[in-house]
Amino acid sequence: MGLHDLLRTAWHRSDSMLCVGLDPDTARLPSPLDGNPNAIERFCIDIVDATADVVCAFKPQIAYFHAHRAEAQLERICHHIRERHPHVVLVLDAKRGDIGPTAEQYAREAFHRYGAHAVTVNPYLGTDSVEPFLRHTGHGVFVLCRTSNPGSGDFQMLDVGGEPLYLHVARRVATEWSQIGDCGLVVGATYPDELREVRAVVGDMPLLVPGIGAQGGDVDATVAAGADSQGFGMVINSSRAILYASSGDDYAEAARAAAIATRDQIRAAGAR
Amino acid sequence: MGLHDLLRTAWHRSDSMLCVGLDPDTARLPSPLDGNPNAIERFCIDIVDATADVVCAFKPQIAYFHAHRAEAQLERICHHIRERHPHVVLVLDAKRGDIGPTAEQYAREAFHRYGAHAVTVNPYLGTDSVEPFLRHTGHGVFVLCRTSNPGSGDFQMLDVGGEPLYLHVARRVATEWSQIGDCGLVVGATYPDELREVRAVVGDMPLLVPGIGAQGGDVDATVAAGADSQGFGMVINSSRAILYASSGDDYAEAARAAAIATRDQIRAAGAR
Repeated sequence: MGLHDLLRTAWHRSDSMLCVGLDPDTARLPSPLDGNPNAIERFCIDIVDATADVVCAFKPQIAYFHAHRAEAQLERICHHIRERHPHVVLVLDAKRGDIGPTAEQYAREAFHRYGAHAVTVNPYLGTDSVEPFLRHTGHGVFVLCRTSNPGSGDFQMLDVGGEPLYLHVARRVATEWSQIGDCGLVVGATYPDELREVRAVVGDMPLLVPGIGAQGGDVDATVAAGADSQGFGMVINSSRAILYASSGDDYAEAARAAAIATRDQIRAAGAR
Repeated sequence: MGLHDLLRTAWHRSDSMLCVGLDPDTARLPSPLDGNPNAIERFCIDIVDATADVVCAFKPQIAYFHAHRAEAQLERICHHIRERHPHVVLVLDAKRGDIGPTAEQYAREAFHRYGAHAVTVNPYLGTDSVEPFLRHTGHGVFVLCRTSNPGSGDFQMLDVGGEPLYLHVARRVATEWSQIGDCGLVVGATYPDELREVRAVVGDMPLLVPGIGAQGGDVDATVAAGADSQGFGMVINSSRAILYASSGDDYAEAARAAAIATRDQIRAAGAR
């Protein structure tokens, strides 16, 4: 199965578009993990096991592991997700973008070392920087399009022949890169109008949507703007609001409750 | 000292604008290293020690290490460069680009874990994705502008208000991001006309210039187009043509000879 099939299966099976982002900030880990040499791994696996039936995807953010020499912990977390929760899509958030031979090294890291189904990539270097990822059969990419951060407009909103750069990126991915392999786009929930424009351009292409929760994106507006023709089509990410729902002994239960509440909010928005 | 001062010192001390890129392709390591469990480290340190007096900078490409679980080897290589060759600038080629809190994690990885002076970053996410790097005093970034690969024109050449996107990036980095911290730009040697245009826009800002050697960029055209008002101003990278000058016992000597020849070619071009 390719990425698109995996996602469709995950959406229908879980009836959820929620993705839990695994961004383990060592300064915010729950107090019961103090002194645990594998605290990052323990924390992430507890969150994963507490929320796996509520989500369509998990999205580890690689910087939070690499900044702390925790690659081995990330490998074990990814292995755990693939073994124990085989129907949940694993997206490695690494925002890669490099020339062809280097991109192939990054693809091996994402797909072989960590076993990710998909990886996030940056479009700035063009087609040959993304092709090596797409040549790995059964995998796919989410291409940065309109990101959720305050400065995302600096370049993404520049006018290119009458439309903003991010729409130009969306069009190119939909018409050209999708011919090479399974692509999706990253569009922030903090910009629902742009999310709607992207959806209009790309048909039913999957969208990875960060920015709800701590970043302030509105769930109702996001679902109304971004759902595909089947009522799914999005991987809606929340990280901090779920990971740090409690800093005490009940962190896993609190994360589960926060994930269920967010999933239900997304479901309710879709039923409107 | 900040990145700009470090570079000026390195250029004058070595009288060289050559940078050796450390992209250790495990399929191409010299035969004497067969079976060595730390072959990547041994190879890179031998190359570093054989060429350190001939270069202004070393540029490890992180993907070649992370694809092979060789982070610890990269740490030791970087530590070796900083300890044994303290006047050589260490640029981590990682092409980072992410939202603020994640960018801070990447900055810690580059500057604390690996001890790099500078890191390459992607501009697509805008100002707040680069700021965390620039807030690390004494360090700096090289922002991707016009890259050396065939597909770099897909987006970088798009017309934005009468000039290509890459020039817009160059201008923004020169006028705004340089107010926050020490910036340089990445401009490929494979496009000398664009290199000249960028130099005209950014004054004496340092340029990291990949693309000579295996990628086919012309040294004379590069130096003529890209040198600053002092006759320096560039970090001209060659990786494969130096690393794999020989696959036999003499790989370090062959790399040194290739590095000297390239440095001399750059010097001669500058004297014209």
